[in-house]
Amino acid sequence: MRRSAQRIALSSALVGTLVLGAAGAYAVGADLSVNGGARQLAGDQSKEVRAAIDAGRAKNVILLVGDGMGDSEITIARNYAEGAAGRFDGLDALPLTGQYTTYALDRETGLPDYVTDSAASGTGWATGTKTYNGAISVDLEGAPQRTLLQIAKANGLRTGDVSTAEIQDATPAVQVAHVSHRKCYTPSSSACADTDLLRNGGLGSITEQLLDTRPDVTLGGGLEYFDDVAQAGQWKGKTLLEQAEARWYDVVTTAADLDAVTFAHQKQPLLGLFSAGNMPTVWDGPLATKAGGAEPAVTCDENPDHTADVPTLEAMTSKAISLLDDPSSKKGFFLQVEGASIDKQDHAANPCAQIGETVDFDASVKAALDFAEADGNTLVIATADHAHSSQIVYPGSTTPGLTRTLTTVDGAPMTIAYGTAEEGGSQAHTGSQVRIAAYGPRAANVVGLTDQTDVFFTVNDALNLDTDAPAAGAPVIRSVNLSDGASVRGKQKIVVKLDSEPKYTYIELNQGGVWKTDNTKAAGSTNAGTKPVLALDTRDYPNGDYTVKIVSVGIDGRSTSKNLDLTIANR
Amino acid sequence: MRRSAQRIALSSALVGTLVLGAAGAYAVGADLSVNGGARQLAGDQSKEVRAAIDAGRAKNVILLVGDGMGDSEITIARNYAEGAAGRFDGLDALPLTGQYTTYALDRETGLPDYVTDSAASGTGWATGTKTYNGAISVDLEGAPQRTLLQIAKANGLRTGDVSTAEIQDATPAVQVAHVSHRKCYTPSSSACADTDLLRNGGLGSITEQLLDTRPDVTLGGGLEYFDDVAQAGQWKGKTLLEQAEARWYDVVTTAADLDAVTFAHQKQPLLGLFSAGNMPTVWDGPLATKAGGAEPAVTCDENPDHTADVPTLEAMTSKAISLLDDPSSKKGFFLQVEGASIDKQDHAANPCAQIGETVDFDASVKAALDFAEADGNTLVIATADHAHSSQIVYPGSTTPGLTRTLTTVDGAPMTIAYGTAEEGGSQAHTGSQVRIAAYGPRAANVVGLTDQTDVFFTVNDALNLDTDAPAAGAPVIRSVNLSDGASVRGKQKIVVKLDSEPKYTYIELNQGGVWKTDNTKAAGSTNAGTKPVLALDTRDYPNGDYTVKIVSVGIDGRSTSKNLDLTIANR
Repeated sequence: MRRSAQRIALSSALVGTLVLGAAGAYAVGADLSVNGGARQLAGDQSKEVRAAIDAGRAKNVILLVGDGMGDSEITIARNYAEGAAGRFDGLDALPLTGQYTTYALDRETGLPDYVTDSAASGTGWATGTKTYNGAISVDLEGAPQRTLLQIAKANGLRTGDVSTAEIQDATPAVQVAHVSHRKCYTPSSSACADTDLLRNGGLGSITEQLLDTRPDVTLGGGLEYFDDVAQAGQWKGKTLLEQAEARWYDVVTTAADLDAVTFAHQKQPLLGLFSAGNMPTVWDGPLATKAGGAEPAVTCDENPDHTADVPTLEAMTSKAISLLDDPSSKKGFFLQVEGASIDKQDHAANPCAQIGETVDFDASVKAALDFAEADGNTLVIATADHAHSSQIVYPGSTTPGLTRTLTTVDGAPMTIAYGTAEEGGSQAHTGSQVRIAAYGPRAANVVGLTDQTDVFFTVNDALNLDTDAPAAGAPVIRSVNLSDGASVRGKQKIVVKLDSEPKYTYIELNQGGVWKTDNTKAAGSTNAGTKPVLALDTRDYPNGDYTVKIVSVGIDGRSTSKNLDLTIANR
Repeated sequence: MRRSAQRIALSSALVGTLVLGAAGAYAVGADLSVNGGARQLAGDQSKEVRAAIDAGRAKNVILLVGDGMGDSEITIARNYAEGAAGRFDGLDALPLTGQYTTYALDRETGLPDYVTDSAASGTGWATGTKTYNGAISVDLEGAPQRTLLQIAKANGLRTGDVSTAEIQDATPAVQVAHVSHRKCYTPSSSACADTDLLRNGGLGSITEQLLDTRPDVTLGGGLEYFDDVAQAGQWKGKTLLEQAEARWYDVVTTAADLDAVTFAHQKQPLLGLFSAGNMPTVWDGPLATKAGGAEPAVTCDENPDHTADVPTLEAMTSKAISLLDDPSSKKGFFLQVEGASIDKQDHAANPCAQIGETVDFDASVKAALDFAEADGNTLVIATADHAHSSQIVYPGSTTPGLTRTLTTVDGAPMTIAYGTAEEGGSQAHTGSQVRIAAYGPRAANVVGLTDQTDVFFTVNDALNLDTDAPAAGAPVIRSVNLSDGASVRGKQKIVVKLDSEPKYTYIELNQGGVWKTDNTKAAGSTNAGTKPVLALDTRDYPNGDYTVKIVSVGIDGRSTSKNLDLTIANR
């Protein structure tokens, strides 16, 4: 299945649709020892690289993130599965390449935190804003930052969010939610800050915000978290799964059911939840141990837990693309795909599981690339959110940390070391810059040294999005039963009429910046629905000039606001 | 000194001379927390990347190798010296970027060896041939592989070889020598194979071959090895330093003397040897230790051993370029520059020394880039020979291996971990693919996934070299005192006349592929000089048909051969 020199020759004629290929179809076992025997190039590729540069706009963007997939993780997987001289059909076929930085910011000092987690890193590309480790698309101060998926949706594009992790996990979450801590999965999560929760006027837990953001396609794990119960809002007292169904989500839980789905749109979005927690890995094998590197070399096995009921990332990616693609529409789609367990199995010092996930991720990149080549109008970006522990060390060696030796497809021993935690601990992320590679319109913006936040702007520009576009469902204030500058006395209801259902609406009596009362507290008031009300007895307040502040927040956090001057003049 | 957005605007008009720059001049302490505050791009750079692609030929090539400088080592040094949001003026200004593989081959099995050493890796780019760890520009079978520097020289280009290591160390050696083991520095090195040595008809030790290859400019350490004495050949009994001087090398040993040099050419090549062994590092600081990561953060110091007598790599690079550049000549130059001690200090788990060497390497890349931008006809490639141990881990953490926490220019703590050897041991190379970046004609050949052996072909193609060009001094066989098909009897001298002094000449009586005798053994014979002789008493051999094989080997290993049929017909 490797690309051949023939492919270069064929492709070079097709400006803008080029995918660079290998110099030759290296069969494993080919003679790498002769002069030129290990080349990857067939000759000067200047023309091919130039042809791969397209400054135009894209209809669609597919952003694929290998969690924890640094250059070392890529090389490990390629060596094992394709051979040292091999090429991945997806990752290694992307024609334009570079490196980007992934650092986060320290929440207290605001200074660089040189090792990011997936939350801060994902927030970087999803919103263009650097933030602290643990933050889900909020800035250092906790202010929500609009995401690529939300902006794409507000611009009328179809959207998808796919991961092999729990769908509430950091990387899928950064596109659909804004919470102060990544573990605020559900209303009862102890990790939720008070200000995150719906009952306190927050935007809600990650799962609740996912349902609010309402991508057309959401696929991953994390089904068990949908058993939790909403504590406030329209679906108070219902489980999150009941809420999803009440909101017309098409919930599927097996690969066969996923296969059978034929459409996904705002009236009936697809929510595939294929495991209680993270999805099982495709491969498995022995963990790295203190002495593992010196033990006999092993090969990897398929993971029996990855049953036929569980789709691969490649299958989810292909399905998402087929559901989101609409050649008859001028509007395209934005799709994020995460290979989550490259990272999780690197944490676990499980080289085989890590490699299998990288191989599945590569197949997903290939699926995206195949679509993009056929479509001719799709930007594909593949990158990682941070580097990780695993390193290739001398065959058969051990280190102060953990090691395991594998026999690769070359028939040669490869020893993988994990050096950032003791046996039984969780191996740690590392701070190296990582690879970013792309194909299609605006792909040249991955070349050279960039930062992960550049991806946000590159994707917005490629799709020509209006970053301030009001989200579908962002409420419009139709009327208020009070004119600006009105004078009132006695009991007074302030009634706002909205065009559509908001997440919630604040109506607040304010004087000189000081909050006097609002409709989340005042008796007889409501902040829900299309006719929120603030019920006042104006005699509780001194006569004088006030402001009524109205903020109505839509389902993706987008708000509409209005201020009215008011004079209280009781006798 | 950071590049500004202004630079992009200016550069974009200059097709072919573009260096991509940063979006803004990020002062350390700038607000990275605002939306877009950490961007590296100023906007769509498609036009700039396209302008950086030049499919033409280069007059000059400067190949800069950061030994052991994986993406992690680059990031560590950037964070420390420029800040997480900073840019290196050299490394990060190269407009075209990619990744390449570095694996070696196992000497016994011929299968991939996933962790290369500097010898095999350097042989890869210097010769286009994959080989075993330890090999200096010989293939798996031990056969010499012609190097970029030797080919450039044979094509009439000026050449240079610069390193902060002993000049006999693997990376500088791969361009000038062919030996079976990298530690064959001098004739008395125990690492030399018998077949390497001059006294056995070999090409000689690395130092001897360096003198034979005769680059115009050679700068580095390793002076002490020139005290060894030649055991054979024209300079038998002389020290290698005496030999260098006898061969008209201009030997300098201080930075001031280097400054004073005004020319370097084949009549009087420059040999700068600035330390007994490896050159001292520019910076120093505390080693990583078992508990180091949790100790108070430190900053790096200048290394007092790096006195004013010792030039920096940047100074050596600039000097080499100024000596090799000749605007009045149509012929250009090939220069290899190695930042050797990034690797050596990574082995030593000395983060400060490693960072200082990376910073000096970056300054050398900047010097090359400045020249190339002004020249407009120079290919600059900067890469590494392999990845290494050091990783950035969570600030203040420790690992099973060694750690040290530094305070960076950002004012923030950065913890570096070394996890491949115990305290006091040598940290090991790692097998990740590494960054390759370039500027100038044919620079696009670093984009995507390539292998280190591709560099050999890219450079040859860029310089439009004839890889078979006879080296200056490669002997030509003028005559043999025997006609093809002659019949001989009794005593017979076979006398070859050459146009120039060879390294040595084999004259061999051969029958059916079996070696009967040759002029390295037969009494009265000689294989030295311009009139080598094989003295035979043909009565020692049965009557019959034989072949006389003549191979005359020039000073860079380039050989001329001739076969003559011969019948022995004694009565």
